[in-house]
Amino acid sequence: RRSCRSWPRSWWCRWRRRSASRSRCCSGCWCPRSRSPPSRDGASEYLIEEEEGLNDHNVVLKCAEIQTAISEGATSFLFTEYKYAGGFMTVFAVLIFVFLGSIEGFSTKSQPCHYSVGKTCKPALANAAFSTIAFVLGAVTSLVSGFLGMKIATYANARTTLEARKGVGKAFIVAFRSGAVMGFLLAASGLFVLYVAINLFGLYYGDDWEGLFEAITGYGLGGSSMALFGRVGGGIYTKAADVGADLVGKVERNIPEDDPRNPAVIADNVGDNVGDIAGMGSDLFGSYAESSCAALVVASISSFGINREFTPMMYPLLISSVGIIACLITTLFATDFFEVKEVDQIEPALKKQLIISTAVMTVGIALVSWLGLPYTFTIFNFGAQKTVHSWQLFLCVAVGLWAGLVIGFITEYYTSNAYSPVQDVADSCRTGAATNVIFGLALGYKSVIIPIFAIAFSIFLSFSLAAMYGVAVAALGMLSTIATGLAIDAYGPISDNAGGIAEMAGMSHRIRERTDALDAAGNTTAAIGKGFAIGSAALVSLALFGAFVSRAGITTVDVLTPNVFIGLLVGAMLPYWFSAMTMKSVGSAALKMVEEVRRQFNTIPGLMEGTAKPDYATCVKISTDASIKEMIPPGALVMLTPLIVGTFFGVETLSGVLAGALVSGVQIAISASNTGGAWDNAKKYIEAGASEHAKSLGPKGSDCHKAAVIGDTIGDPLKDTSGPSLNILIKLMAVESLVFAPFFATYGGILFKYL
Amino acid sequence: RRSCRSWPRSWWCRWRRRSASRSRCCSGCWCPRSRSPPSRDGASEYLIEEEEGLNDHNVVLKCAEIQTAISEGATSFLFTEYKYAGGFMTVFAVLIFVFLGSIEGFSTKSQPCHYSVGKTCKPALANAAFSTIAFVLGAVTSLVSGFLGMKIATYANARTTLEARKGVGKAFIVAFRSGAVMGFLLAASGLFVLYVAINLFGLYYGDDWEGLFEAITGYGLGGSSMALFGRVGGGIYTKAADVGADLVGKVERNIPEDDPRNPAVIADNVGDNVGDIAGMGSDLFGSYAESSCAALVVASISSFGINREFTPMMYPLLISSVGIIACLITTLFATDFFEVKEVDQIEPALKKQLIISTAVMTVGIALVSWLGLPYTFTIFNFGAQKTVHSWQLFLCVAVGLWAGLVIGFITEYYTSNAYSPVQDVADSCRTGAATNVIFGLALGYKSVIIPIFAIAFSIFLSFSLAAMYGVAVAALGMLSTIATGLAIDAYGPISDNAGGIAEMAGMSHRIRERTDALDAAGNTTAAIGKGFAIGSAALVSLALFGAFVSRAGITTVDVLTPNVFIGLLVGAMLPYWFSAMTMKSVGSAALKMVEEVRRQFNTIPGLMEGTAKPDYATCVKISTDASIKEMIPPGALVMLTPLIVGTFFGVETLSGVLAGALVSGVQIAISASNTGGAWDNAKKYIEAGASEHAKSLGPKGSDCHKAAVIGDTIGDPLKDTSGPSLNILIKLMAVESLVFAPFFATYGGILFKYL
Repeated sequence: RRSCRSWPRSWWCRWRRRSASRSRCCSGCWCPRSRSPPSRDGASEYLIEEEEGLNDHNVVLKCAEIQTAISEGATSFLFTEYKYAGGFMTVFAVLIFVFLGSIEGFSTKSQPCHYSVGKTCKPALANAAFSTIAFVLGAVTSLVSGFLGMKIATYANARTTLEARKGVGKAFIVAFRSGAVMGFLLAASGLFVLYVAINLFGLYYGDDWEGLFEAITGYGLGGSSMALFGRVGGGIYTKAADVGADLVGKVERNIPEDDPRNPAVIADNVGDNVGDIAGMGSDLFGSYAESSCAALVVASISSFGINREFTPMMYPLLISSVGIIACLITTLFATDFFEVKEVDQIEPALKKQLIISTAVMTVGIALVSWLGLPYTFTIFNFGAQKTVHSWQLFLCVAVGLWAGLVIGFITEYYTSNAYSPVQDVADSCRTGAATNVIFGLALGYKSVIIPIFAIAFSIFLSFSLAAMYGVAVAALGMLSTIATGLAIDAYGPISDNAGGIAEMAGMSHRIRERTDALDAAGNTTAAIGKGFAIGSAALVSLALFGAFVSRAGITTVDVLTPNVFIGLLVGAMLPYWFSAMTMKSVGSAALKMVEEVRRQFNTIPGLMEGTAKPDYATCVKISTDASIKEMIPPGALVMLTPLIVGTFFGVETLSGVLAGALVSGVQIAISASNTGGAWDNAKKYIEAGASEHAKSLGPKGSDCHKAAVIGDTIGDPLKDTSGPSLNILIKLMAVESLVFAPFFATYGGILFKYL
Repeated sequence: RRSCRSWPRSWWCRWRRRSASRSRCCSGCWCPRSRSPPSRDGASEYLIEEEEGLNDHNVVLKCAEIQTAISEGATSFLFTEYKYAGGFMTVFAVLIFVFLGSIEGFSTKSQPCHYSVGKTCKPALANAAFSTIAFVLGAVTSLVSGFLGMKIATYANARTTLEARKGVGKAFIVAFRSGAVMGFLLAASGLFVLYVAINLFGLYYGDDWEGLFEAITGYGLGGSSMALFGRVGGGIYTKAADVGADLVGKVERNIPEDDPRNPAVIADNVGDNVGDIAGMGSDLFGSYAESSCAALVVASISSFGINREFTPMMYPLLISSVGIIACLITTLFATDFFEVKEVDQIEPALKKQLIISTAVMTVGIALVSWLGLPYTFTIFNFGAQKTVHSWQLFLCVAVGLWAGLVIGFITEYYTSNAYSPVQDVADSCRTGAATNVIFGLALGYKSVIIPIFAIAFSIFLSFSLAAMYGVAVAALGMLSTIATGLAIDAYGPISDNAGGIAEMAGMSHRIRERTDALDAAGNTTAAIGKGFAIGSAALVSLALFGAFVSRAGITTVDVLTPNVFIGLLVGAMLPYWFSAMTMKSVGSAALKMVEEVRRQFNTIPGLMEGTAKPDYATCVKISTDASIKEMIPPGALVMLTPLIVGTFFGVETLSGVLAGALVSGVQIAISASNTGGAWDNAKKYIEAGASEHAKSLGPKGSDCHKAAVIGDTIGDPLKDTSGPSLNILIKLMAVESLVFAPFFATYGGILFKYL
């Protein structure tokens, strides 16, 4: 059968099927539906398409019940989270208004413009008011996006389970389409609200584009600060529940994952929805909003803005719009042009999505650049104007787009158990958990190398061609296929939940096998999604950093000055501080969960026998309370650092802090999420036992497997809490600095002024 | 008894002893020699001063035999290492000569000076030749220092064991004095060779101080590149042996540490000497040589150099000289003014060394600054001259010195099991190895915060007061107590070895208890020593970076240029790449060791019963071969990066790389070494069971203890290989860039030039 792999098997088999010899297979090759030859290694590579238990209405009711419990848990958590987020939003909105309004002493008189010499611009008070409105708009859009994404996912999970009764292909389509609904919803709503806001703000601002787009940056800040709560709070929630459930259920009580007897099982499934779906959705929405804002604010002081050319000014939004269309076309390849019929077609189908969307989008970018831009224009470059051609801007967007693809594939190489890195990590479990951890950490460190070169190359090219505007549109390029990215990313937790529901509803082993197959592919794509998120965060932060520096009126950020250098050093430390907080939070929350789960097992009679029901609600409450409480210190660190540094130490030091946090945070984020992904898949590799090597390490419960489970548990907070939250850290500090730049430029650095 | 702690107990008790009531103790307090009241918690806090087994001559012979084996193993490894290092040295010496000589096409004609306008300086060819000589001098001094340090330590270890028969105080004095011999030897020889070299080179250079001190920088490069081999090679050696011995001996065969039946036990003890002694010695010697060179090269283009004022020019060397005297006085406090008589006096005695040396040295610096410097002078500051007063330079040196003390104490807080951080980590072992690792990593990340602020503060102050010269002398300030630092640092492995010899020689439990007590204190001081090494490395690298930038003729390193920014990003990635290599090396070498140890246990009959001797030599050979082979790739990464970046991408990108590697490497180095130290001491905390809390986690062999052992094993490569090697990475890249700066300034950046 192996030789067949090099063939385009599905086509070949489809042709064979159409031909007469339906039952006879070509040598070494095999056709779906015939289910022969039987799988040699016990893995279910054949088509699982037999209908199973379709008439059992009880199962449907049970699934609906579980789904309701998950959905209610998720809704209740998000509402609690949003209550706190709303309180924070109000305080911060007031802060923005007061800080920015104070620049000209709350005067209502128009002022001379900052960049357009000789013109008059709207007063700072108006900018303060509109920035505040934009901030609230961005925050609300982010919250609504996360919430709707979660709703879609919690609708889709049980449907995927039920669909799995009809076959793996049907289940795949439900899970993937649900993810796509979420992806398109987020991409479109973010774009729509931004466009409407620009036009409505424009009614007041009229000719003053400088003020207009300065105010619009509040949108990015709003989106990103809510993403912080979503990522950190959701991340702590999901991993506290997961680690807690595993440590007692799998390790101490020896019951399978997602067993309904485990009191933390609902909390675990809720966690997938609030962490991986709502958190990830808010995160990528934030990236998108920020990179658009960064591009717009730089463009507004370039020739587009100065000459009031609306179409080229909207170039960043045009790219995103074309991106949605490109992704729409791409989606059809997964659900309509081809059909997933076998388990091992799932991962290629998802990977194909990335390649096709990138290819289609390259054409889209070329079109937009050709039609939407004048051939020559100038871009603001730290005090000077730089002449740029439209094809150069095309290159900037394209390099970002393709760098994203490279990062995606490298991430896959280091986290999928089809390749040697993860297999080496699995192999190191032979000598115990310690070597597993050493090899896993080394793998994560190593996986940083190529993504950093890819990011460095795209920064170099786009920066050289079109200064910070180039970097901003490169970030947009990487994010232009966001709808596809979100679709495959959301697909993972939906499948994960579907498996959990199948287990809890007591459905047959066959159904669980199908959902597991969906989930396994989702693991790798989740890692790819994180790779994208981090790569784009790096580009976005740099673009925001550039916009901040421009707005703050600095022309150089010289490492050879003490202010900048200490900023760089302290900035590089912040991701460590932040990671220490989030990791310890997960640890403490998990310990609380462990105690509660142990208590229930010990005090509820008949729980282990399955005759009594556990108290799911208490576990949900513990996760909720812990994550809300624990997200405050890291949130405060991120939100207060730019304010404190800017106000007391001034814009130079703040520039250093931003650059330091960026270059150091990217590395930890990539290595943490890849280390975690590799440990997870090394464990899955041993469990699946699909090769001779894997079998020699297994089976489940062997010493090797136990060592692998320890690695997996360590990786949980790394890959799902601290790693991905670092994106937000670097982006949010940059966009916050940009919004407050006028204030810092006027009043900042009081410590140095008075010393 | 507790209330007594606040008293100066030894004085009080000494006085009591002299008074009549020898046997009766004051209320709650107790006197040595009376050994009452008996220790409540079972820990051996009483005076262990009874003579034991003094007349058994066989023990002496056995100790001598073991000592010879360790010494021979260490010598053989160092000679093998030096053979490769020698080969490298030859190649690199040729490279330096060719690269630097080519600047003016190997012309022998004198050239106009670079900084002193209107004067003539020696030809580039002469600088090339003298740089090469200085490089070789530095390399040889470093090798000799490491070798002699190792020799001293391997003489001292068995003597400490034998002295332990007479009591813990006697053993402490031997171990500490041996460490001090090594400390003073290194500090003095480094200073002496440098001073002689300056004077000899001066015979040729005469009035051309620019060229003279440019050539002298080769000394730093030589010292540091040998330190790279010492640290990386020694680090891999020691941890491969340690991890290999533990995984089979302690975990699989359940025999105690240092049991003579374990075939890897000699390799393990050799490792302490080549890694912790020779490696650490070379490392700190390198730091010292580099910071002196950085200070000298900046001074040579300041008013001292321009006006040819020899005494102020020698200010950096004067600080080091006074430092040796200050340390000499300090040493007397440990061995002569006070006497260590009880186990729990050891750690305070070592800590007191740090405080006293810092206090004495502050006076010393004040004297040198007052006597050796003119009141006002000018310092070269990236193209301009900055006026500085002598008291400002005093502040620069003092802030470095005291920042070192702060880093030392913070390191102690996070790695000693007397405080809550390590106790929390130990407590997290209740829920298994996974939470132990999560808490340990979080602890390491958190421990970065205050040291970074301390470093940032000292950089800010010294940079603001006296530009890069200030930073260089701040680094010298931190290193001025190097002799004391090395003494307490070397004390650790000597005690560790002494314990190993006691176990192998089959000495009584009491003796082993004494050496263990010595060793436990050494663990914390080793972490403090690493903190010093990293802190000083950060300052030194910045000073070297500043000197490089000055020499390369750059006046700003602007983050807002693509060249610099991508350098920054890639530079910040290098420590991860390097760590990935070294950690994986330790893992692979340990796996080989595990196989060999298992093989011996399985094939040598009577080994477990103690009737047959294991084949120690094969294990020594495996460690040697593995570490030599594995040290080449990380070594090549460090040595080639500046050459490649400088030649192809130019000095701006190289500046970015240096700054990025510095700000990112410091964080990983601190967090790695503290995480490892904390895990080690969390394990020791559980083993010792000295409090109710610790007892509830233990005893040895409990599940908690097993989880703690896993953490300890993971920490080994972090704290003894990759963490401390990162110092060298950041320093070495900077000094190499400085040495090759004239070449890069002339020919560098060919990729950008021709694109």
